[in-house]
Amino acid sequence: MKRRHRHTKTNVMKLGMPPGTPMYVGEASASPTSLTVVEYDANLYEVVQCRTLEEVDSYRKSPTTTWLNIDGLEDVPLLERLAKRFQLHPLLLEDVLNTRQRPKFEDYPEHLFFVFRMYSFEPDGETLKSEQLSLVLGKDYLLSFQEEKGDIYDMLRERMRLGKGRVRTSGPDYLFYAMLDVAMDYYLLIVEHFEAHLDHIEEELLTNPTERTLQKMYEHRRDAVELRRSLLPLREALSQFARCESPLLQPETRLYIRDACDHAQRALDALDHYRESIATLTEIYLSTMSERMNQVIKRLTLVATIFIPLTFVVGVYGMNFDYMPELRWKYGYLAVWIAMITLVTAMLLYFKKRRWI
Amino acid sequence: MKRRHRHTKTNVMKLGMPPGTPMYVGEASASPTSLTVVEYDANLYEVVQCRTLEEVDSYRKSPTTTWLNIDGLEDVPLLERLAKRFQLHPLLLEDVLNTRQRPKFEDYPEHLFFVFRMYSFEPDGETLKSEQLSLVLGKDYLLSFQEEKGDIYDMLRERMRLGKGRVRTSGPDYLFYAMLDVAMDYYLLIVEHFEAHLDHIEEELLTNPTERTLQKMYEHRRDAVELRRSLLPLREALSQFARCESPLLQPETRLYIRDACDHAQRALDALDHYRESIATLTEIYLSTMSERMNQVIKRLTLVATIFIPLTFVVGVYGMNFDYMPELRWKYGYLAVWIAMITLVTAMLLYFKKRRWI
Amino acid sequence: MKRRHRHTKTNVMKLGMPPGTPMYVGEASASPTSLTVVEYDANLYEVVQCRTLEEVDSYRKSPTTTWLNIDGLEDVPLLERLAKRFQLHPLLLEDVLNTRQRPKFEDYPEHLFFVFRMYSFEPDGETLKSEQLSLVLGKDYLLSFQEEKGDIYDMLRERMRLGKGRVRTSGPDYLFYAMLDVAMDYYLLIVEHFEAHLDHIEEELLTNPTERTLQKMYEHRRDAVELRRSLLPLREALSQFARCESPLLQPETRLYIRDACDHAQRALDALDHYRESIATLTEIYLSTMSERMNQVIKRLTLVATIFIPLTFVVGVYGMNFDYMPELRWKYGYLAVWIAMITLVTAMLLYFKKRRWI
Amino acid sequence: MKRRHRHTKTNVMKLGMPPGTPMYVGEASASPTSLTVVEYDANLYEVVQCRTLEEVDSYRKSPTTTWLNIDGLEDVPLLERLAKRFQLHPLLLEDVLNTRQRPKFEDYPEHLFFVFRMYSFEPDGETLKSEQLSLVLGKDYLLSFQEEKGDIYDMLRERMRLGKGRVRTSGPDYLFYAMLDVAMDYYLLIVEHFEAHLDHIEEELLTNPTERTLQKMYEHRRDAVELRRSLLPLREALSQFARCESPLLQPETRLYIRDACDHAQRALDALDHYRESIATLTEIYLSTMSERMNQVIKRLTLVATIFIPLTFVVGVYGMNFDYMPELRWKYGYLAVWIAMITLVTAMLLYFKKRRWI
Amino acid sequence: MKRRHRHTKTNVMKLGMPPGTPMYVGEASASPTSLTVVEYDANLYEVVQCRTLEEVDSYRKSPTTTWLNIDGLEDVPLLERLAKRFQLHPLLLEDVLNTRQRPKFEDYPEHLFFVFRMYSFEPDGETLKSEQLSLVLGKDYLLSFQEEKGDIYDMLRERMRLGKGRVRTSGPDYLFYAMLDVAMDYYLLIVEHFEAHLDHIEEELLTNPTERTLQKMYEHRRDAVELRRSLLPLREALSQFARCESPLLQPETRLYIRDACDHAQRALDALDHYRESIATLTEIYLSTMSERMNQVIKRLTLVATIFIPLTFVVGVYGMNFDYMPELRWKYGYLAVWIAMITLVTAMLLYFKKRRWI
Repeated sequence: MKRRHRHTKTNVMKLGMPPGTPMYVGEASASPTSLTVVEYDANLYEVVQCRTLEEVDSYRKSPTTTWLNIDGLEDVPLLERLAKRFQLHPLLLEDVLNTRQRPKFEDYPEHLFFVFRMYSFEPDGETLKSEQLSLVLGKDYLLSFQEEKGDIYDMLRERMRLGKGRVRTSGPDYLFYAMLDVAMDYYLLIVEHFEAHLDHIEEELLTNPTERTLQKMYEHRRDAVELRRSLLPLREALSQFARCESPLLQPETRLYIRDACDHAQRALDALDHYRESIATLTEIYLSTMSERMNQVIKRLTLVATIFIPLTFVVGVYGMNFDYMPELRWKYGYLAVWIAMITLVTAMLLYFKKRRWI
Repeated sequence: MKRRHRHTKTNVMKLGMPPGTPMYVGEASASPTSLTVVEYDANLYEVVQCRTLEEVDSYRKSPTTTWLNIDGLEDVPLLERLAKRFQLHPLLLEDVLNTRQRPKFEDYPEHLFFVFRMYSFEPDGETLKSEQLSLVLGKDYLLSFQEEKGDIYDMLRERMRLGKGRVRTSGPDYLFYAMLDVAMDYYLLIVEHFEAHLDHIEEELLTNPTERTLQKMYEHRRDAVELRRSLLPLREALSQFARCESPLLQPETRLYIRDACDHAQRALDALDHYRESIATLTEIYLSTMSERMNQVIKRLTLVATIFIPLTFVVGVYGMNFDYMPELRWKYGYLAVWIAMITLVTAMLLYFKKRRWI
Repeated sequence: MKRRHRHTKTNVMKLGMPPGTPMYVGEASASPTSLTVVEYDANLYEVVQCRTLEEVDSYRKSPTTTWLNIDGLEDVPLLERLAKRFQLHPLLLEDVLNTRQRPKFEDYPEHLFFVFRMYSFEPDGETLKSEQLSLVLGKDYLLSFQEEKGDIYDMLRERMRLGKGRVRTSGPDYLFYAMLDVAMDYYLLIVEHFEAHLDHIEEELLTNPTERTLQKMYEHRRDAVELRRSLLPLREALSQFARCESPLLQPETRLYIRDACDHAQRALDALDHYRESIATLTEIYLSTMSERMNQVIKRLTLVATIFIPLTFVVGVYGMNFDYMPELRWKYGYLAVWIAMITLVTAMLLYFKKRRWI
Repeated sequence: MKRRHRHTKTNVMKLGMPPGTPMYVGEASASPTSLTVVEYDANLYEVVQCRTLEEVDSYRKSPTTTWLNIDGLEDVPLLERLAKRFQLHPLLLEDVLNTRQRPKFEDYPEHLFFVFRMYSFEPDGETLKSEQLSLVLGKDYLLSFQEEKGDIYDMLRERMRLGKGRVRTSGPDYLFYAMLDVAMDYYLLIVEHFEAHLDHIEEELLTNPTERTLQKMYEHRRDAVELRRSLLPLREALSQFARCESPLLQPETRLYIRDACDHAQRALDALDHYRESIATLTEIYLSTMSERMNQVIKRLTLVATIFIPLTFVVGVYGMNFDYMPELRWKYGYLAVWIAMITLVTAMLLYFKKRRWI
Repeated sequence: MKRRHRHTKTNVMKLGMPPGTPMYVGEASASPTSLTVVEYDANLYEVVQCRTLEEVDSYRKSPTTTWLNIDGLEDVPLLERLAKRFQLHPLLLEDVLNTRQRPKFEDYPEHLFFVFRMYSFEPDGETLKSEQLSLVLGKDYLLSFQEEKGDIYDMLRERMRLGKGRVRTSGPDYLFYAMLDVAMDYYLLIVEHFEAHLDHIEEELLTNPTERTLQKMYEHRRDAVELRRSLLPLREALSQFARCESPLLQPETRLYIRDACDHAQRALDALDHYRESIATLTEIYLSTMSERMNQVIKRLTLVATIFIPLTFVVGVYGMNFDYMPELRWKYGYLAVWIAMITLVTAMLLYFKKRRWI
């Protein structure tokens, strides 16, 4: 999995600004900010691409539920005007725009606010990408802010169009939940993807472990740590959400939120298990490598050790002393060979007995 | 212990579905979904295999307690109709069918719901298998959902038939508890089985440790981690259950649930102790192995070190200088031998003194 | 310290039984179940060995306090009858008989129940033994269940006989506490015994560490872990006990229980400190061993390294070329010796400078 | 990053003093203690450098909000008089002056008190410096105590002058918050700076890791630990502050404080992530280094092992036995060469097969 | 720092005793138990050495505040009589005498009781010593129990004599606090002393690390662990004290106690930081040592590896074959030298390229 680009100059720019100053800190997106209104109730389902906020307003005033989706956060003045019309708290807008937000749930008097990080795969099915999503629930409308125009909620919209599930018949709070639920499904999906990797690594470890395997394990661990960093506060936020007593939230929906909370916990459990498994595999890898290295060095040292005494022996009879009786014996040479072979055999037997070879 | 098959495609399919959509994610079982009704009170005990839900309904309406056991979760439409008849919450049915559920207890207005993982041994007595079990407690009935037709509750049924214990004389909540209690007994049994393995490993470590021993320890640790992953949330769920104030639960039963909760804690304690013991044994193994390797290398290096100076000495007298007085001495050769033996002895003594050998 | 025998077949037998079935899972004791009644108040102190439960009953009805001590848990039918007479809850009796119980305190409507593990030394003063003790406090009586006839409470009885302390003048709840207090004293004693071992090990580490030392440290750690496993839930149970609001417990006694709770915490602290110390000593041992090994190998390698170039040099002049001018020089041999000695000196100085020797 | 000077003699001097004795324990600053009053409301903004406390008093009595900033804490008598005029609690003044304070929030009856450590960069943009900041919020005034005259709040003052943001229109509690917010911005900035370092280190690890890299990682870890030591209690203090129910704090401001608390949590999360990343990188470094060393030794040992048997072989034919038939053969020399080349080839093939090379 | 003597026979003696039996378990002190009364109010300050308890009583009945300091705990009968006169609870006296007490705060109906361990330096300024201190606060008196006559509170007494601070003008609860505050100051002092050691060790690590450095680090760690063992429960006790609602404690004093609690937390933070720093330094030491060792072995192996092929070469031409053409060549000898020099150069270049040297 490749790594997302890291933006590092964010907070330098924020230093001198008053708190609550809206400023977009993410990357520039290709497409401009666009406003999509989904107007629905049990009988109606209409998708409109709005140009102006006035147009949005007209939909909002209708008795049906209004879901306004904002793609792209670069047009800050537009968003500020939008915030004013929807009476969003300055801090809320700041949180929407600061795309390095910690997932959190905030219960404003007039709104419920949920910001979290959405993970999904690039079209290649391997590279992980993420964007920040902010949801604002009002009395009869829902605002969703996405960094980039994406297809994450296409299936949800299709479901709504076909009238499947309870979204159309329930209030905006259920849609709010349904959007969180999609995010949770993605988290579970990614964790399963991770787990599938584990099997590959385990196989690689057993058949042909290389230093590359180790590096891959470190990368996976890093990915898991990053996902966990978003998931842990998201679980907390969901649990806060489930306990929140705002009149904007209908009692029936609470049960669903608790379920999403359980899913988050399940994803966390799986993630922790995954991290622990990688740690164990790393340990196995390291001890296998060290074992293998030890084996190599041991055997080589063994070879050396057997030959060193032999070299000494032949050295002895290479000496040039005038008087060395063995050199004159007829079977001296043969005797030396016999002695050496005996010595080697004895050493091998000894090593065997001591389990050194 | 062999590893259960891991299904990895689950959540991909769930991505586009509305929350609460019932979908079975487990493996296809051999047998079709079957409905078994146990109809009982203090005087009556009757087991009936039902074909239709209507048949089930007739039993449910009788004044006696009805235990409906559903084996196999593949016939989703049947289960949906059943859910409607028993007024089960859509999320409840989804949880029953998603067999990778985190153990949990849920207090619905009309039902108490408990889902957990049941571990038992394959007939070989070695391989661990597990299935998800869901229990639903209603006003005068109990539903139990099993992934596969199994014999886990045969002994419980036998006990009920014979009228042993309190099951027949107490309400369905006691049966609910009794089924959880059987699961806890299995957990305790498996943990004891694990502990018995420890003794084998310890013996192996002392007599003949091999790299295989290490691998076995890693496998045991993995098994323990997996069991713990089911047991920890199960303990939590039991403790929630014990504190729940639903009118479906009679006060006398609460004491029993607390006892089951204690059993879960005991199993957890034993499991943690087991994991810690394995970790310690792994440490001992690694330090023993490294010690042994060090011994080998040390001794071999020692041998080499003794012979290297000797080889030098004999090398000296292998030189072909015209003028080398020693070569001409009568006892030159003898002197060299004496010198070398003295040198070796001195080195050995020195090494001994320094505790190197 | 030797290890207690581990019984592994317990829960297999329990699998098919209804919850609350009393079954003794411990080892068969030598002596049969015996009933000892201690009848006391401020003026009276009488010890009677009872044969039948009727005899016990007559004492219980007297206005004085009755302490019934049951030694040996094998006679299950007798204990069942006893439970019926004292109206003990079925789960209570099951807990008494299952001698692998987790220490716990239970507040039944008619009784306070405390079960814990009592550690003491065998007569040799070295081997640790343990048994499970269960205490039941009723309105004016106290039941204590011991696995084996032992002398743990002899000193307590002697104290009561002599009228020392407050036991005789206080109610059965104080006796209940006094029995827990004796257990705590034993825990503290054992932890001190452990700490004394630390000094021995430390000394051994400094003077003559062997692989045996390491093994001993692992054994001590295991003992400490086992003791902790009983002590930690015991502390929790004591703290629950101190907070319990049963009318069976007089307000004055509560202060004493809190004190016992403090003692448990102190023992736990000392135990943790002990474990940490052993871990540190193990680290020191391992780094000392590795350091020593490194020293050996380094020095031996050094020797080898010095002689290898020398061997090369003498090899050069062992060559048989027809034309090698040095061989003909008068002082060639001397020159070679001088060159070699110079070389060795230079190497030694270099090694010294680089701190390699 | 260079390390700040550590002052070690602080508490020795405090030993004999009564609690609450004001004593400045920081380093002597270059500039003397100076009093700067900022007098403001929605319409007014005035900055005055005061000489005497009487002058300060006159401003305080005016209906506008008064922000008194004290730079330099050396003039203890002046501060004592100031404390008396503003009725500060003796412990409060002691906390202001003891510049090794743990960040904390204190809710005195007449004041809210916040003390924390402010981190910023030296002009070189690399070296971290820190100073303790204390804020006291009264009914219509705010006191801020800085160790050294600095420019940290210049941007805030400029913002106030220009009337940007809400500071001028809100009460002193909002200014109080705004000052904490600036500190949080600095923390986030520094953590980002840390993260940027990570990239450098990662690159260094991949291209050219040296022992210097390891040392750098230890230094970064130490810096992170130090920052965390200030940030963790600061987060706690902020959360206490957000929950405090003092009438000095207006309800609207509470929301902002909670936001600052979130920022602190975000910085903490990032810091923890940073520490974990460094730990992982250290592990990678160590295993890479050990791997590299193993490779070196393995290959060198290999070379040695190949030549040792060869040396033995040539040694054999260097022996001076009278009767050695091979020496007389015509192709003896050639045969030896062939034998040796065959041997080397065989060994290399064997090593290759065993994956030793 | 030297280690305090460890007494190991304490609890053996306590085994048979009733709970609450006062028994002194510390070391015998040189001086006998002495009673010092400090009688004070805003106008009076008098120090009297009392002989009898009657004498003490007369002071206690006076309207001024009485501080009775008891040095030496060996005269148990005297202390028992004292306990009776002051109506101290038997458990309280037991805690005073058992000098291995865990620091704790106890709220008796008539008294507040605080027991903790006081650390200070021996006159050499290096060796740490400690003693247990117990404070009992009554309605208008304060009792303090010290193991040995010491000078810890000399400065406090001097301060009282001179009328500095609030001690004389506040009630006995403030004196109670002041005595705790002195203890906290000592803790902070000792932690600073520890931190100063860190600098020494760091320097030693950089210039000349030896095995002695490692041992020193282990000793420091042990000292820190021991201090922490007293400090952690002390912090808890202080925080309990701050929350206690006894009428013996005046509301104004509560703020001071909270401040002492903050100091304890600060000392704990510093201690934890210190322990972490030592752990990091130990890691650095170990990796430095291992790195250095690797360097040594690598270079030495390198030398060996270069000479081994050379030795083979010269061995070749030391063979005695009849037919070896090279030996007859005129420049054979020279050619061998050139070949060998070329070989060495090539190897060195290769090693350099591979970064092995």
